[in-house]
Amino acid sequence: MHMDTYVLRIDMPARRVTRAVAGESLAMLGGRGLIARVVLDEVKPGCDPLGRHNKLLIVPGVLGGTPAPCAGRISVGGKSPLTGGIKESNAGGVVGHKLARLGVKALILENKPDDARGLFTLVLAKDTVELVPCPDLAGLGVYETAARLQERYGKRVGVMVIGPAGEMELTAAGIAITDLDGEPGRYCGRGGMGALMGSKGIKAVVIDDSGTRAPEIRDKKKFLEAARAVIQLIRDTPQTAEVYRNWGTAALVTTTNALGGLPTRNFSTGRFEGADRISAEALRELILARGGLATHFCMPGCPIGCSNRVPRADGSDLVSPLEYETIGLLGSNCGIDDLDAIGEMNRLCNDLGVDTIDVGGAVGVAMEAGLVRFGDAAGALELIREIGKGTVLGRVIGHGGALTARVLGVRRVPAVKGQVMAAYDPRGLKGLGVTFATSPMGADHTAGNTVRVQIDHHSPAGQVEASRNAQLSAAIYDMLGVCMFVGPAVRDRIDLLGDLVSARLGVPCSAETIRALARQTIMAEREFNRRAGFTSVHDRLPEHFVEEPNPATGTTFDVSDEEMDGMWD
Amino acid sequence: MHMDTYVLRIDMPARRVTRAVAGESLAMLGGRGLIARVVLDEVKPGCDPLGRHNKLLIVPGVLGGTPAPCAGRISVGGKSPLTGGIKESNAGGVVGHKLARLGVKALILENKPDDARGLFTLVLAKDTVELVPCPDLAGLGVYETAARLQERYGKRVGVMVIGPAGEMELTAAGIAITDLDGEPGRYCGRGGMGALMGSKGIKAVVIDDSGTRAPEIRDKKKFLEAARAVIQLIRDTPQTAEVYRNWGTAALVTTTNALGGLPTRNFSTGRFEGADRISAEALRELILARGGLATHFCMPGCPIGCSNRVPRADGSDLVSPLEYETIGLLGSNCGIDDLDAIGEMNRLCNDLGVDTIDVGGAVGVAMEAGLVRFGDAAGALELIREIGKGTVLGRVIGHGGALTARVLGVRRVPAVKGQVMAAYDPRGLKGLGVTFATSPMGADHTAGNTVRVQIDHHSPAGQVEASRNAQLSAAIYDMLGVCMFVGPAVRDRIDLLGDLVSARLGVPCSAETIRALARQTIMAEREFNRRAGFTSVHDRLPEHFVEEPNPATGTTFDVSDEEMDGMWD
Repeated sequence: MHMDTYVLRIDMPARRVTRAVAGESLAMLGGRGLIARVVLDEVKPGCDPLGRHNKLLIVPGVLGGTPAPCAGRISVGGKSPLTGGIKESNAGGVVGHKLARLGVKALILENKPDDARGLFTLVLAKDTVELVPCPDLAGLGVYETAARLQERYGKRVGVMVIGPAGEMELTAAGIAITDLDGEPGRYCGRGGMGALMGSKGIKAVVIDDSGTRAPEIRDKKKFLEAARAVIQLIRDTPQTAEVYRNWGTAALVTTTNALGGLPTRNFSTGRFEGADRISAEALRELILARGGLATHFCMPGCPIGCSNRVPRADGSDLVSPLEYETIGLLGSNCGIDDLDAIGEMNRLCNDLGVDTIDVGGAVGVAMEAGLVRFGDAAGALELIREIGKGTVLGRVIGHGGALTARVLGVRRVPAVKGQVMAAYDPRGLKGLGVTFATSPMGADHTAGNTVRVQIDHHSPAGQVEASRNAQLSAAIYDMLGVCMFVGPAVRDRIDLLGDLVSARLGVPCSAETIRALARQTIMAEREFNRRAGFTSVHDRLPEHFVEEPNPATGTTFDVSDEEMDGMWD
Repeated sequence: MHMDTYVLRIDMPARRVTRAVAGESLAMLGGRGLIARVVLDEVKPGCDPLGRHNKLLIVPGVLGGTPAPCAGRISVGGKSPLTGGIKESNAGGVVGHKLARLGVKALILENKPDDARGLFTLVLAKDTVELVPCPDLAGLGVYETAARLQERYGKRVGVMVIGPAGEMELTAAGIAITDLDGEPGRYCGRGGMGALMGSKGIKAVVIDDSGTRAPEIRDKKKFLEAARAVIQLIRDTPQTAEVYRNWGTAALVTTTNALGGLPTRNFSTGRFEGADRISAEALRELILARGGLATHFCMPGCPIGCSNRVPRADGSDLVSPLEYETIGLLGSNCGIDDLDAIGEMNRLCNDLGVDTIDVGGAVGVAMEAGLVRFGDAAGALELIREIGKGTVLGRVIGHGGALTARVLGVRRVPAVKGQVMAAYDPRGLKGLGVTFATSPMGADHTAGNTVRVQIDHHSPAGQVEASRNAQLSAAIYDMLGVCMFVGPAVRDRIDLLGDLVSARLGVPCSAETIRALARQTIMAEREFNRRAGFTSVHDRLPEHFVEEPNPATGTTFDVSDEEMDGMWD
């Protein structure tokens, strides 16, 4: 039984492992909350994000390892090599729960291997931590790497892995996480965390929780009651019980297109003439016709099932999951209306280990620069393949959309703080514009999505408040390791999440406690960014969005700077 | 007679010219001082430097057009597309004097042409301002462009021109200025001012001062007395009378190499085994053996003659001038010890219209990344040729060393605020390290060079004071349009410069007035940068210089952050 949880530090040049009981100060912290605290306390704000002073944190949520619904997300974080600010990126799959079952409160990769370094797999099991040289995995794609590790360490292990892009330290590189099927299709995609892992000389982390038990729950009865209440709410809420389940995130295609917020041809407009061909309906029809799964669960304890498994026409595996953001960025944003082509691009990005959002943004920018014409799916695939070849063009694309725009001289740059916007034109969905501008995470929809807020998305009124609420909500889920898709069900019952934490840890925890911790998290992130050299000038959208109307809506992004600057006062 | 001077504004989409008498508030301002004031007052700090809100200012010094010695430098400035901060870059040649003779206090290019834009030559003459379409010059190199314009507008005109790099808006692009021979070899090289000019749709500015007179001097007697005194000091000072004259700036090769401050193989060390082969002695011998000029004057009224004309072995023109910074960056920094090869690289950079310092830094970084081996001059030339071809690799190199390092994943980045350091290893010459770190201009030796200060260059003691004094001195010369190479002669007689200004304008102007204006200039620049999002975090050298000793000296850069942060208090 582990009543204690541990902070595990791996010093890379020495390959020394330190294991310390997590202190009292970290007790209530997990996921993004713990990352914010530790990065603020330990990482030199001005450091080279790919140098020895940065740290990569891998952290389950506070509810990780428990039977709370959807609580197995894994957070990774550090100073972002993409934005230069703090970054937390989280994903589903099996790793969060397994790490929590090993008693790991936080795994921290520190320092940097010497120049003549090897490549290592970090293997965590019940009583052991090993750094295993893995020269045979160098340069391998994510799918093959995960398969070999499952062969080597067993089908039941959880795996986190980087692709060639992470090894090359390309700053749009993410970290892939295996799901319940063992498929490495869940992604901590944003902010270049794959490059940070690559800079530490780690190709993969294998988590074997054989022989472990779930973390101790101090008040089992209270916990089960709260968990059941949350599950009931999920079942009673149409968004969680029906929309996510049947249509997945792709349901947003129709929504955002109708609002004029579906990025199209490098964010030049917000409505795509091919939207019907990349909609949730089209996707579901394609999946079902080929015997795939239109409802799919990425982690144990998920009653929602927003994921999917998409086969090719010949029945072979194409990709799992295919999600809205990918469809928006690699699809409409590139003028591509072919789900098979988008799926192939998605698979290739996954295999190379890059974020589909930032690379989709980069391809859109490259199309605007004329390297490939909009709508040319074969050309887009070739551009992405360059990443794997390590050519200069491939490196540029693999560093994401902002750098690609700089290199190619494209002035319409759909990015904030160096990170490409997720699939929402901020002139059509102004609350997301506020989040993109102001979040310490850069332009990241998961930092505060307002798409489902009942508001006139074309009006500037109320958007700062909507974004603030969404940013606080996001921080809550990201702290707890709970999937944000329970949001529509529990948004008015944060007390139930408090009950879960309280029952798990044996401390009082109200909805107010949870909200205060979420706010503290965002404040710590903002403070890190301030120390790293960010000012209010960096909390702005590119001038194109402020000055050029979205042809689909006739609107510009007109939420005032003053209102955004005051959002946390 | 023009007693008034004018601010000439060219609005590019409208192609409208506005001519207004320069207000009283600008009376004492010129060159860098005027640029600082106008950029702070008129340019939106957060704007896209290549978008419509930025302005390109072209400004003679306060003493421009007068017979004061070495007073014909021309300043260009705006928000830098390279650094994102304010930038002023100045050069010798004939343009500064000619513009002043036309009565132009400041030429300001505003706004931005529409997408379907043309390319224009701006022709200024005594009573006319014309924007002449010049599609025939598109894509032409700097040498050919200048020659065609001299053919078209006469041999006596002054010409400012950008090369293909500026037209492509590559952010290491500079603006070439013709010298007394009509050769476009003087360069406003730093900070991407060529890209800014390109973004305005201007390929060249032709300045025809036929029929004009020198600006009125209010007290001719006082002016001539002060001018004679300055000339006498120049003649009496060994540095100006002998060193610059006989050896040019290349004399620094031996000095910095001895101090362990000559950048070698991407700033990995500060001493180059081939230094003797690229020294001033070697250069002078080569020049004289081939019938070139080891002493050469770039502007009217220069009694120093630091410039040179370097022929090829066959007697044809290679380049004029070949200077220390170019030798350091394209030579030792690339491991190249062949003056002919360095000269060819210099000529190619000049013709493409890029800064030899930033491109030299980029080539060094590309060599560290393994694209070409150190010392491979043919390979380096090929890399630079890529710029002209407009390939992705060429665009990367043409954006300078910091971007090249980012793309290629090189962690030893010899740049501050996105701009490559001039040819001084800041661990061997710590005063220059302070200037590189703290100057609002980014890593620019002309912003405050301490190489001739009598100080232990390896000790951190006194470097902040040395840099502050050098930064103030630089601002003085850059304001007045006076070449900084008069510095060794007049540094203790700033009152003579005050007398020149006073006599020219008919207002009192003491040494203290001049120093106060210089300080105000730097404060205005710092304020612009603050508003543009710069903080003390940006006033730092890359961690490599702070943590890895220079093998030639055993020293790191160890001037404290606190001391640098307090340097203007």
